[in-house]
Amino acid sequence: MYRSHTCGELRIADVGSSVTLSGWVQATRNFGGLTFVDLRDRYGITQLVFDQEEQPELADQANKLGREFVINAEGVVRERSNKNPNRATGDVEIEVLRFGILNASKTPPFTIEDETDGGDELRMKYRYMDIRRNPVKENLIFRSNLSLQTRIFLNQQGFVEVETPNLIKSTPEGARDFVVPSRMNPGQFYALPQSPQTFKQILMVGGMDKYFQIVKCFRDEDLRADRQPEFTQIDCEMAFVTQEDILNTFEGLTRHLFKHTLDRELGDFPRMSYDEALRRYGSDKPDLRFDMEFVDLNEEAKGKGFVVFDNSELVVGITLKGHADSYSNKDIKKLTEWMQRPQIGAKGLVYVKYLADGVKSSVGKFFDDETLNSWKDKLGAEVGDIVFILSGEEEKTRKQLSELRLEMGRKHELIKDGDFKPLWVIDFPLLEWDEESNRFHAMHHPFTAPKKDDQHRMLNGDHETMKSLRADAYDLVINGAEIGGGSIRIHDRQLQSKNFDLLGFTKEEAEEQFGFLMGAFEYGAPPHGGIAFGFDRLCAVMNGQASIRDFIAFPKNNQGKDMMIDAPSHIDTTQLNELSLAVEIEEKKD
Amino acid sequence: MYRSHTCGELRIADVGSSVTLSGWVQATRNFGGLTFVDLRDRYGITQLVFDQEEQPELADQANKLGREFVINAEGVVRERSNKNPNRATGDVEIEVLRFGILNASKTPPFTIEDETDGGDELRMKYRYMDIRRNPVKENLIFRSNLSLQTRIFLNQQGFVEVETPNLIKSTPEGARDFVVPSRMNPGQFYALPQSPQTFKQILMVGGMDKYFQIVKCFRDEDLRADRQPEFTQIDCEMAFVTQEDILNTFEGLTRHLFKHTLDRELGDFPRMSYDEALRRYGSDKPDLRFDMEFVDLNEEAKGKGFVVFDNSELVVGITLKGHADSYSNKDIKKLTEWMQRPQIGAKGLVYVKYLADGVKSSVGKFFDDETLNSWKDKLGAEVGDIVFILSGEEEKTRKQLSELRLEMGRKHELIKDGDFKPLWVIDFPLLEWDEESNRFHAMHHPFTAPKKDDQHRMLNGDHETMKSLRADAYDLVINGAEIGGGSIRIHDRQLQSKNFDLLGFTKEEAEEQFGFLMGAFEYGAPPHGGIAFGFDRLCAVMNGQASIRDFIAFPKNNQGKDMMIDAPSHIDTTQLNELSLAVEIEEKKD
Repeated sequence: MYRSHTCGELRIADVGSSVTLSGWVQATRNFGGLTFVDLRDRYGITQLVFDQEEQPELADQANKLGREFVINAEGVVRERSNKNPNRATGDVEIEVLRFGILNASKTPPFTIEDETDGGDELRMKYRYMDIRRNPVKENLIFRSNLSLQTRIFLNQQGFVEVETPNLIKSTPEGARDFVVPSRMNPGQFYALPQSPQTFKQILMVGGMDKYFQIVKCFRDEDLRADRQPEFTQIDCEMAFVTQEDILNTFEGLTRHLFKHTLDRELGDFPRMSYDEALRRYGSDKPDLRFDMEFVDLNEEAKGKGFVVFDNSELVVGITLKGHADSYSNKDIKKLTEWMQRPQIGAKGLVYVKYLADGVKSSVGKFFDDETLNSWKDKLGAEVGDIVFILSGEEEKTRKQLSELRLEMGRKHELIKDGDFKPLWVIDFPLLEWDEESNRFHAMHHPFTAPKKDDQHRMLNGDHETMKSLRADAYDLVINGAEIGGGSIRIHDRQLQSKNFDLLGFTKEEAEEQFGFLMGAFEYGAPPHGGIAFGFDRLCAVMNGQASIRDFIAFPKNNQGKDMMIDAPSHIDTTQLNELSLAVEIEEKKD
Repeated sequence: MYRSHTCGELRIADVGSSVTLSGWVQATRNFGGLTFVDLRDRYGITQLVFDQEEQPELADQANKLGREFVINAEGVVRERSNKNPNRATGDVEIEVLRFGILNASKTPPFTIEDETDGGDELRMKYRYMDIRRNPVKENLIFRSNLSLQTRIFLNQQGFVEVETPNLIKSTPEGARDFVVPSRMNPGQFYALPQSPQTFKQILMVGGMDKYFQIVKCFRDEDLRADRQPEFTQIDCEMAFVTQEDILNTFEGLTRHLFKHTLDRELGDFPRMSYDEALRRYGSDKPDLRFDMEFVDLNEEAKGKGFVVFDNSELVVGITLKGHADSYSNKDIKKLTEWMQRPQIGAKGLVYVKYLADGVKSSVGKFFDDETLNSWKDKLGAEVGDIVFILSGEEEKTRKQLSELRLEMGRKHELIKDGDFKPLWVIDFPLLEWDEESNRFHAMHHPFTAPKKDDQHRMLNGDHETMKSLRADAYDLVINGAEIGGGSIRIHDRQLQSKNFDLLGFTKEEAEEQFGFLMGAFEYGAPPHGGIAFGFDRLCAVMNGQASIRDFIAFPKNNQGKDMMIDAPSHIDTTQLNELSLAVEIEEKKD
């Protein structure tokens, strides 16, 4: 037996018990007469004591223990004279009577502490030591709890978890597939699923009624920060439902998860149309933890002789409360430069400060104080506030101002710690016209249904009509992060076929890639819809963390590499031959 | 709203309620004045009634409904005059006041009944209709429940579910990997995991203490009957444990699963060494639902002048109770031929019938009645019984007799319906010597630890010693099916390195493939061990079904093809170019 108790378990009531513990040496402290060893496992840290006088041999051995040695120790629990109130086991210590080294350890390449001195690369290479650290360990345990609670709730609601296949068919639409050569079918390939979308729809056609799955998905994208080639979804689908049913069900799931993992009751789940979200916050995933709503100043600011505004499609502002004095000319200059970076691309930044001794503004030359003061009401501004104004092409300007709004939220700590603001964004456009490729793109995906009232228009309308179609699609946004997205699906062959047409599929392409689905629609497909939650992101948002990486046990780096196992790697020629493949690396042209 | 109730929900207490139902038309019956429609969904079937006289238009429409049309119907619940006690909703019917067709259906290619007329290929191609059938649907729901109960139990025991990566590194050891070309790292490949073995060990080194995962695994094997290229495991690992701890924990899991899905209390989980299992049943996964233990007849049957026995390493028999009269000479001939098929490969089959009027045997010429009668006690045979005897090389003979034993069990229905007999098989050999490749193979896998007492012998012994090493490995067998297998793992670099040596790895190969694991063993690896359950098989065995295929929503056929979506398939040249790959199909040589 390696242990009678864990290292997080013993309390004052256990004093006098004989116990055996196993774990890792967190630290040893030699005070001459006494040696203390902090023994750590997943559950906590317990102090071991060795008395040089009473057990000289044991104490000598203990003094030789290095960090991260794995030992087990037998002894008797006793009360500590010097209690540690910051540790659950801090009232007791173990007077060790016997101990053994289960495994030695080289000196770890970084400290196994909450705040480590290991950089990202070292941590990933030695992930097994990184996981011993509390923050990573707790994240992984949180993730496990969250998945269990997801399953418990959905099961209670009658959902069936069905595993869909990982070796499926490649479909060029959307992101790039990872493919898997088939040895038994030379020259042919499986693809790894970007999502189980078609399979869950097939399950609805199969009468499964309520499906879910917590499932790995794969996308071969050029990795931007915080993207992973494999990621996890809570994937759900329901039959015989309207958007209303789905929103209610998954508001329920979200409430359950917050309640049963964080013990938090969430407030309202307001709903906002896509258009409204863009108008009020310049984003389809607005962070509602703070205000700073957009105020349209076209009427007030255009036609007053300031040519920049006059030539703009939109003049729009936000009010930062109580910070009129926080921005010197130098600060404004810095902020303007920040807004002008290519990532944001604003042309300039106009400010208006409402000060006790008057108004100050970068457009003071063009607008007199009276005019500027007249904007206050509409802006909700008072003395002491500063207003930022952008102008230009409508869509771009809103996006730029959204970035500024978020920056202000972060910079001025407008966000209450531990606050959660959920929001359903609804009524998305069905299709986006892409000037570059001269075709429509699906705003959500090709299986999303237009709103019922728009179906006739979709089947019979002209090109311009298509731009105005609304989808029965919805996103769940929490704290400005898109947590989930879904839609009511098309369940009619004709409508699906029309959608593929609009998206630029030839009949043959549509048939080859999605013929099975359109075929299924001819054999009794019920109305259905669903949603998928980004599980990694949900974990991070619920814990107020910006990165998903430490909620994934073994993440890959930005080159898609696993630094610990050193994957991907070259494979044998034999393997390639069996797969009827040859590697042909082209020289990169400059 | 598509429905107020499901089709499985309404009872006599609901009579008088206005309800809305949605579902599939299972059948329509037109009795002139009345038309009955059986409406089906996942939850059951409810009868709809249309009265020709009162609602002629509705009834006319109902008469036109085809099988598998999706409709919704509003009406009032009323008591049936002609109740159907075989149906949960059989006391009521719905007098329909309004209905609509949500989707039409072509005539299904097979009947949506418990016993269908669809062959395997049709069922797979139109899996969405197959899943509507009760047996498949119930299997998938069972699977979902089983996975939930697994998670609930393991969570209660402190296990953390950790997702390990699917894009890992190819290792030529063991079965063939599926590989995934990396676009970002030209010429390099990921592999899909055959199991998360090394990652779960790494998690133990990472202090996770108790890990589990219900996880997809992948093996590119030539598919034998009832093998799938992707399959699911309940994968578990624990630190600071002995074999005893693991056996107890997973006996607990197994009991929990039977209790909470089948409401069955399992009996004992006996333990049997690998050697004993082979000796008594000729198999390392004996079916204990019936007796027919092997009886060694070397002493009794050899040296009596029958040259076939005399030249055999082993003479061994089994007694079939009460069937002496069931086997005519013709039956014996047929059975002998069955045993001589290449799959089994017996040279012949000897029988001894103990009849009321004497003994009858195919070796009566060589053994007199007195001798044959003298074997009765040892064989546990009485008058009325027939004994089957095989002889030859020991290992082969036992395997052949095991096949005969199982055949007798099936043929003579020696197995009580719904009986479950679990068994732990323990003390497996560590290594198997393979004459052909002139090297050792790992009986379990390369990470399995030798028993503690054998570790010194392993590090210091000679070639013959290696053959006698025993592993700390164990299999859970239920009803003759291997449900789970695992072992205590090596956690010491030196021992692991020695094992790789024995398995024929060069130092470089071992380092390249498993260097990260051996490296991890140098930074405080705790003793650990684990187990993996074959989840698909467990589902099948618990339901007394021979095939795993209908516990998988979308299985592949024996060519590894998904018949519904038609995967694998060819991919674009663009895709191949992006992956720096070319297809090179060699002409098959005859």
